[in-house]
This record gives sequence, C-alpha cells and structure tokens, in this order.
Amino acid sequence: MIIVPKNIVTVDGKDRILKNHFVEIENGKIISIKQNDEKYFSKNKQRVFRFDDLTLIPGFVQTHIHLCQTLFRGLADDLELLDWLQLRIFPYENAHNKNSLLSSVRLGINELLLSGTTTLLDMGTLRHQEVIFEELQSSGIRAIAGKCLIDENNLFPAFKSDTESEIDEIYQLARTYHNTSNGKIKYGFAPRFVLSSSEKLLKESFEMKKDFEGSLYHTHSSENKDEIAEVKRRHKKENIEYFDSIGVIDDHSVFAHCIHVNDKETNLLKKNNVRVSHCPSSNLKLGSGIANIPKYLQKGISVSLGADGAPCNNNLSVFNEMRLAALIQKPVHGPLAMDAKTVFKLATIEGAKALHLHNEIGSIEVGKKADLVLLDLNTNMHSMSENDETIYSDIVYTSSSDSVNSVMIEGEWKILNKKSLLYDQKELNQTSKDELKKLLKRVKN
Amino acid sequence: MIIVPKNIVTVDGKDRILKNHFVEIENGKIISIKQNDEKYFSKNKQRVFRFDDLTLIPGFVQTHIHLCQTLFRGLADDLELLDWLQLRIFPYENAHNKNSLLSSVRLGINELLLSGTTTLLDMGTLRHQEVIFEELQSSGIRAIAGKCLIDENNLFPAFKSDTESEIDEIYQLARTYHNTSNGKIKYGFAPRFVLSSSEKLLKESFEMKKDFEGSLYHTHSSENKDEIAEVKRRHKKENIEYFDSIGVIDDHSVFAHCIHVNDKETNLLKKNNVRVSHCPSSNLKLGSGIANIPKYLQKGISVSLGADGAPCNNNLSVFNEMRLAALIQKPVHGPLAMDAKTVFKLATIEGAKALHLHNEIGSIEVGKKADLVLLDLNTNMHSMSENDETIYSDIVYTSSSDSVNSVMIEGEWKILNKKSLLYDQKELNQTSKDELKKLLKRVKN
Repeated sequence: MIIVPKNIVTVDGKDRILKNHFVEIENGKIISIKQNDEKYFSKNKQRVFRFDDLTLIPGFVQTHIHLCQTLFRGLADDLELLDWLQLRIFPYENAHNKNSLLSSVRLGINELLLSGTTTLLDMGTLRHQEVIFEELQSSGIRAIAGKCLIDENNLFPAFKSDTESEIDEIYQLARTYHNTSNGKIKYGFAPRFVLSSSEKLLKESFEMKKDFEGSLYHTHSSENKDEIAEVKRRHKKENIEYFDSIGVIDDHSVFAHCIHVNDKETNLLKKNNVRVSHCPSSNLKLGSGIANIPKYLQKGISVSLGADGAPCNNNLSVFNEMRLAALIQKPVHGPLAMDAKTVFKLATIEGAKALHLHNEIGSIEVGKKADLVLLDLNTNMHSMSENDETIYSDIVYTSSSDSVNSVMIEGEWKILNKKSLLYDQKELNQTSKDELKKLLKRVKN
Repeated sequence: MIIVPKNIVTVDGKDRILKNHFVEIENGKIISIKQNDEKYFSKNKQRVFRFDDLTLIPGFVQTHIHLCQTLFRGLADDLELLDWLQLRIFPYENAHNKNSLLSSVRLGINELLLSGTTTLLDMGTLRHQEVIFEELQSSGIRAIAGKCLIDENNLFPAFKSDTESEIDEIYQLARTYHNTSNGKIKYGFAPRFVLSSSEKLLKESFEMKKDFEGSLYHTHSSENKDEIAEVKRRHKKENIEYFDSIGVIDDHSVFAHCIHVNDKETNLLKKNNVRVSHCPSSNLKLGSGIANIPKYLQKGISVSLGADGAPCNNNLSVFNEMRLAALIQKPVHGPLAMDAKTVFKLATIEGAKALHLHNEIGSIEVGKKADLVLLDLNTNMHSMSENDETIYSDIVYTSSSDSVNSVMIEGEWKILNKKSLLYDQKELNQTSKDELKKLLKRVKN
C-alpha cells in the first residue's frame, strides 16, 4: 500500500516534517518513506491512496483507559473520586453482564478509533474480562489490557473477589491472551488501587508479569486527597512510598494520575523509571487536582496521556487531553510550559515508550508498524499559516476528533473518510441504549 | 416556519425540556411552542422542517470576541499577555488593511456560526472598523461591536491614535451603525484596557454610550499580574478600583477576564452590576490565571462566556469554553462546582442578560427572536442514557462544534445540515491564506 499525504509529521529523532513524500507499507510495516514519484505511483495505481490535503501522523497512544465504563458516560457527573466509585462506578461495573460489557467496549473502541487513538492501555473490570479481550482482538486495535483486580472493597463490598481466585484467573487470562493477534494484544496486570487490593494481590500480580515478557503492571496512584489519607492511615506511608516498600514499582509499571506526590515519591518514580499516565480531564472533573507534569518532564520521568473512563471525562478523544495537558499548566508554570510539540509527543512517541512499544510504534519511520492517522488541518478552524511548526499548534490547540479523516492499524484501515469499517453506528447505539437500560434495572434490583 | 425537533432545551424560567413539541416562527420571532400536531404539519407541509433526531437549543451568546484576530491563529502561541501583545498581536493588528481585516472577520463569523454562536460582543481594532460592521451586517449575525480605542501604547507605539480623533470617530461609527439591521447590530464602546487608554478616552467613551440607548462599554480588566502591577504604578489603584474612581463602571459595562480581583473590587463589581466575561481558554493559554467564577456566581455577579481571540485560544467554539469553565473550577471548589446546567446557562441566557438582550434572545420562549441551534447528541461520543438531565452533560462535557447541525438567526438559516449558507469554505480559506501572507510581509517591512 502506498499513502501519499500532503505532509508527514514523523516524530522521528529529528522531528522532521516531510512534504512531497509518500509512505509505502508491506505486511503492516512501513518499508519506505521517499520523495513522491509519479511514475512509481502510476505503475502501482491500485495500491496508491492519495490524500493530497491531509496530514499523516503516527496513531495516538493512550496509556490509561477504562473501556468497561464507556456505557456509563453522563451518569456520574459532579462527584468526587470516592463518591464516584461508591455511588456509581462500582455498582455499575458490578452490574455488567457479558452483553452490556461488550456494548461498552465497542462504544469505547469505536470512539478511540474515530478520534485517532490506535494503541491503548486498558484497565478492565472484575468479571468477564474475556469479553474485553475478544473484542480487542476482533477489532484489530493495539492494546495492553487486563482484568481489574479487587480483593478488598469497603466502598462497595459486593464488588470484589478473593485473592486466590484473582491470582488464578489472571494467570489463565495472561496465558490465553498475552502476545496474541500478531503481538498486538498484550497482558497488563491491573490491581485497581491500594484501597481495593491486599498486599498479597499487589505483590503476586507484580511478580507474575515477569513470566510474561512485554507485559505491564498498571494501577492508579495518588489521585485524590481522601484516597491518600486512607492509604496513609492503613499503611503509614504515602501511596508511592508504599508501592516502593512492598517492591511493586519498576520500569514496566504504569501509574495513572500521580497528582499528590511529594519530593521523595517523585524521586522514587524517577529512580524506578515508572511511567506516569497523565489524565487531565479526569483529574479536573473529579476535582482531584493538577499533576505537576512540567516537574516530571524536567526530571526525565516518563509521562504519557490517557482519557481515563468516559464517565469522568466525558470523552475518550485524545484531542481533549492534549489541549488540556497544555493549557492547565500555564497559569502555574508560565505560558511557555507544555508547548504544542512537547504535548503532541506525549500522545505519540512518549506513549509508545511508556508501554515499551517504541521500537514498533509512536513515530513514522521505516521498520515501524503502520499505525497511522490522517488529519484534516484545512478547515476554517485551523491556522491559515503555512509555517511547518504551526502544525503542532493546529493539532494540539485547535483540532478535535472531527479533524480525523482516516485511521490504519498495522496497515489495515479501521476508519476511512470518517466512516468506521468496524461498527455500524446506528446499530451500536441502539444496542448500547438497550443494554444500559437493562443494566440500570439490574442496579436498582 | 415550523421546526419539529426531537426535543427542546428551552432555558425558560422553569428550565423545561420539551419532547414532542414544535416551534413556529413568523417574521423572525417565535410565535408558538406547541405539542406536535401531524394534521397541522401536513396542512403546512412547505413550512415544516423536521429534525427528528436533533435537539433544539437557544443560540449561544459569547460576550468577548476579537474577530479581527482570527487570521492570526497559531502565530502567537506560548507567550504571556504583554509579550503576546507587544511581539505579535499589536504588530499584526497594526498591519491590517481592509482586505486582511475582512478575511479575519469572515473566518471568525463562519467559525462562530458553525459552532452555534449566534450573538457576540466584539472588540474591534484601531483602523477600518467599518469593514467589521459591514460584514456583521451582511452576515446577519447578532452583534454588539465597536472600534478598539488606543491613545497610549508603550508596548508598540505605532499602534495608537490620538484622543480627539478616537472620540470623533466612535461618535460617527455609533451614529452610523448603532441599532441597524433591525436592531441586530449595536455599538459597544471599547477602550482596549487601562494601559492603552488615557483617562479622558476612558471617560468620554463611557459618557458617549449614554447617547446610544442599548449600547455597551466593553473593555479588559485584571487579566494579568504584570498588567495590574503597571496599572497600580500609574494610578496607585487596582484595576477595577481605578475604573470606579473615574466613574466608568455600571450595569452596561462588560469587563473581560477579571482574574486578579480583590474583595473590595469584587464588591465594586457587585454594587455596580458589572458584567464579567469569563474566557477560560484564553486565561489558561496566556498563563494569566483562573478567575474565581463560583465566587462571582455566589455573589450574584453576572458571568457569561467568551472565546476571546483565535490566537489566544486557539478556537472560537463555545463548546471549548463551556467544558473548560466547568472543569477548571473543580480542583479548587470541588466537583459539584459549575455543574453542566449552570455552565450551559452562562453560555445562553446569562450571556443574553449580560448584553441586556434577554427580552429578545437567550431562551426558547414565545415572543423571543428565533436565534436557534440544532444539535446532534446521538453520536457514539454522547451518553446512551435517555434521562433528560443528561442533555446538559452531553452539551457541556461531551459535545464539540461537530455536534452543531443547523443554525438560524432571527428565523434565517445560516448553517443548514452542517453547511454554511454564507461563505464558500474553500474560497474563504484561499483568500485568507493569501491575505495572511501579504500581512506578514507588511509586518516585516
């Protein structure tokens, strides 16, 4: 396949923006990036896709998503984290059956693809995790996912399992799904957070990832002040200090949020090369706070972006996260903080690095997988400047999911000319509405 | 004309959300809102517009816009207010000729309409203000606009005029344009800010509005810490205290920003019934700060929303402002602050009240002008809940300009099925690019 865009934002080591170049793809990989060659194009007519007005960028990578919550969008507004969990999210997740979970996952994948995200790190739910994996596989999206582990739950006791069966189940799930779909699907061991996990569960799930090369450890940390006060009450330690004290922190650990983190903990993040997943919309909407991202970046700590779940955002579009990640730091750190190019990289190559996938994805370079997005930056709403550097500003400050024209994963079109090739939108909406109605009835009973 | 939507978000005194109702329009006004009546519809077939899946809302009102800056989007990122003015915005505005200004205004109006804004308060520029008025008139948008007054300018001395000619010119402009286009166009007297205005200019432009009933006084206040330090150095007073001391503050005054405001000044805003125009994107992007909007609302001070100019945002869509206005207050004031319904009202009826237009617009009620917007809240990205209250959440937290299907002002379609009936997008983009190139050359020379 030959893709001929208006320009290419490579995110390669030199941050080149190429004009008059095409990308050639074979077996899902980029095999060449060369100057346009009309003779070559006419010889290979049937393989050529021309997008003369569109900008080619690497697919976006999001490092903290809850697909299982997409169905609950708009049903949990204006609540703080612990109330949000206790009153809505735990009861709703607890009421999921396979069908409602499937609707939720499909809604989420469809929204992510339509807004240009091609790779995600997902935190699953307590039950029916196989439904999530099967849909991830059949959609063709790239994902690291895992069952959400809960063996303690004071907030909503019905929504937990016991330690031993949790541990047995994830071993089976990881054996079944890790490194499937040509390596596109990997396992992420996912204890929900300290307050819902025994020490044994935290440690054993951490140890288990060593049996599955390329798997990750994925949890929430230091999101909310009441949460960390309770962690401190139970364990006499700050959240990240506690993780360190029990040895569940390394360079394959992704900690979502990391808002309320002291200097000692910041040094622990750095020393252990932990990946911070920054979720600005969620952090504002739940009133949690604003993570000190410029400080993390200055210290060389890995930062990437995630939309979290639909009910605390209420979108899964990475464009909202990029714009907000840039804007919210400026009143504190000055308007130069978090410039557009820096933020764009957090959503692409830095996301890939966080997941140890940077040799495969995150930039447009020969040898990488063809996870690609075509953006329309020519609307009335975009800059009228033809300066190359304005492209980053147009993507981060100006664009929305509406700017996404086409999306490909490993050389396969998932969205073409704004149409999903995976799901029938009307049918998906109707099924989702029906499943939500039934789920809300189950919650009431 | 008869409009039959899926539902109507009235923003009337009772905040009714009507299903199975239609709106009838005559001579640009809403003459009835009644239960659907298929017999009546078939008798009046040619006048019926059916939007079975769409939600009808009042057109959005934005109370602080700089149309003259739309052309500069993406060219002034990552700068603080005073640098932003000195290095980019003043030189660029100073280089406007009639053609570049016209392109800028058209881009802005088109973007505003495509994203559902039907009324705006605009701050113009130093020269060629008639170009702005002529385009506002011919577009049919509802606007209060005025020449930007500058008779002092230490930041960029070439960009100013002298006090007497400023005063003469605005009198002529107000006489020519105030209350034209069937009252849709009004004059807003607009000294830029304290640092660019002599006391005489501030006072005489304030006095002049008394000669033009329904006109407003529109300026910037208390936006940036360096700005207010300089105001204090010159006048020994805080910004709003200074306005009060020279008597240019009343219920027809709209002050944009009001971020760095002490308790005494807050009381002055309340006592004088000043209208605060809140511009959250701009305030973050320029690193200015976060205005204490919950405090203003609690005290009963008028608050409405504005996107400010494209180069400090970088959008004019009210959807960005609504979402951000809700989100940024929650880490400080808790997740209950600025709920979706409250924010939606700031962007509709509260905007209308701020401009003293609430008897004409801002809600869907019999007797009001038909400034209406149809939204598609049925996409994959919206809530699957069919609860009425979720509509506000879907509009504020989830929607973007992409959700706008059709827009009408005083009974005339401006956008129909996502197509502008005013401008040819391709032609507008090409002209704008050409004009920007020429303007940037003029800036260099």
